[in-house]
Amino acid sequence: MTSGKTDRRLGEFELIAALFAPLSRNAPGAFGLTDDAAVLVPPLGHELVLKTDAIVEGVHFLHDDPAESVARKALRVNLSDLAAKGAEPAGYLMTLLLPAWPDMAWLEAFAGGLAADQAEFGLSLLGGDTSATPGPLAISIAAMGFVPQGQMIQRAGATSGDCIFVSGTIGDAAGGLAVLKDAKKTHTSPELVARYRVPSPRLQLGRALRGIATAALDVSDGLVADLAHLAKSSRVRMVIDAAHVPLSPALQHLWGSSADAISRAVTAGDDYEIAFTAPASQRGAIIDAAARCGVSVTEIGRVEAGEGVVLRDQGGKDVPIVRGGFTHF
Amino acid sequence: MTSGKTDRRLGEFELIAALFAPLSRNAPGAFGLTDDAAVLVPPLGHELVLKTDAIVEGVHFLHDDPAESVARKALRVNLSDLAAKGAEPAGYLMTLLLPAWPDMAWLEAFAGGLAADQAEFGLSLLGGDTSATPGPLAISIAAMGFVPQGQMIQRAGATSGDCIFVSGTIGDAAGGLAVLKDAKKTHTSPELVARYRVPSPRLQLGRALRGIATAALDVSDGLVADLAHLAKSSRVRMVIDAAHVPLSPALQHLWGSSADAISRAVTAGDDYEIAFTAPASQRGAIIDAAARCGVSVTEIGRVEAGEGVVLRDQGGKDVPIVRGGFTHF
Repeated sequence: MTSGKTDRRLGEFELIAALFAPLSRNAPGAFGLTDDAAVLVPPLGHELVLKTDAIVEGVHFLHDDPAESVARKALRVNLSDLAAKGAEPAGYLMTLLLPAWPDMAWLEAFAGGLAADQAEFGLSLLGGDTSATPGPLAISIAAMGFVPQGQMIQRAGATSGDCIFVSGTIGDAAGGLAVLKDAKKTHTSPELVARYRVPSPRLQLGRALRGIATAALDVSDGLVADLAHLAKSSRVRMVIDAAHVPLSPALQHLWGSSADAISRAVTAGDDYEIAFTAPASQRGAIIDAAARCGVSVTEIGRVEAGEGVVLRDQGGKDVPIVRGGFTHF
Repeated sequence: MTSGKTDRRLGEFELIAALFAPLSRNAPGAFGLTDDAAVLVPPLGHELVLKTDAIVEGVHFLHDDPAESVARKALRVNLSDLAAKGAEPAGYLMTLLLPAWPDMAWLEAFAGGLAADQAEFGLSLLGGDTSATPGPLAISIAAMGFVPQGQMIQRAGATSGDCIFVSGTIGDAAGGLAVLKDAKKTHTSPELVARYRVPSPRLQLGRALRGIATAALDVSDGLVADLAHLAKSSRVRMVIDAAHVPLSPALQHLWGSSADAISRAVTAGDDYEIAFTAPASQRGAIIDAAARCGVSVTEIGRVEAGEGVVLRDQGGKDVPIVRGGFTHF
């Protein structure tokens, strides 16, 4: 890590660098974070998949979230994109914008969260930058993965007649955030809170979908908003069967399973599941892949000619989408 | 660009994405910024060199700095590292943390600054993330370059007997910042201000130094602090001849050329020149390379057995280093 100009007491960034250097241990090209840059070589026949995503205190995580979970979320929101693209994680660069409040214990726990996830997902810190900031804590990560040449699963590729699938369950993170933000503390739900704080990047599933999925992306802005991205890139219409949207028991306990709850779930963000399309002939292969990866996959609709996203009830009527994801494009 | 959750008016991040998408035009693997990740393949026999560096409003640039120069500085502080490593720029990922104040005109000028530098240095935007922040404007860039396999110029490599060289002139950016911060406005110096706002990454020189320099890095924390990095990584001592440190006419006009001025220049930051070591037998090759690249290179000292950095006057006495760069490690 190099250090930004700062009025922090001299040497503090040196300690931080010392804290993070062990995270580069398994990457010889990181030079133990003692050089100015890192070196990375894709394996023969592979290409590099690159993604950057930042999380900001008060915007993407809460000040009181545990340091470990902040670290894991910062890394996992990037890994989730690599997963949806069918890539295998290799390494990451990290920029840490540090206000005055995180003390060394917080930073140690933060590094511990990264170390745990590196071990779980098989990647290494390759380099970073730490800078003081008068603003909120922010972590920007640039993640690198490998895919066999030409096999990245793109957004453009869904065709009319394909089925639409989604991994896991939808709306849990939004439920978790609602629980955390409820001043009256009328509910507790450790499962939902965990889903908000620490997403589960579906890396194994994503790799299994290479050659099967026609298009894919990770659900971060909300299922409807993200399927709208797929629809736009693929120039098709996505029709979602509202009754098939998978809601977890924990979320149903919190919100019920009315049309309103479904509408809320599909327009919330932070799911970090994979939404993808594939021809009906691949259903068997998808069921096998899901079983092998230990992740549920649900068929939630079909691709038609046209544009946009439609949420349809069991009677075949369009359900009004009351609120999009946080942004629509 | 994907968008962070935000209370900005709907669609604003869509405009920003539209503003930045043209910056990816020359990189087919960027998919016009319409996918979730980018694809990059190093040319045969090359490896990827990776670097990330962030700049923060009020820390690394001033609120009133022109948007174009903020963009160029954000990119160039990263390119400067690629330069010192002998790498050729290929592309970059960018995270933009946006407070409320930058209006669309500011963002357009910012994108214009990036476009100009992309054309000058031959690289493309590969992807990015925009998020709202209640804090200062911050730009984190992760830059990717290529070097022929095994030819990255490392920090570790200087040996006793090598000569020490530096490109350009030292202290100008600090002089420029002093001029900008002087409330009395007793001096103007467009040259020095320009050196503070828009560094010149010595990319052509860096590539020419492959196979010539034994160790190199870019001078960002201050010449003394950065040579201390080289000394530490290479396990040697760096002896700088104070009288040989190259000061520009503009800086001498501002600060004079006393021992104190030199001391100030070598402990300031933001030079973004290349400091490097090479055996005396390479002097001729270095002079040729410098002439070919149109960059001055000055021999400023020699590498000895030992550790640390010493600044020596013409009488052979150690000059006390009154103030280190912003951080020492």
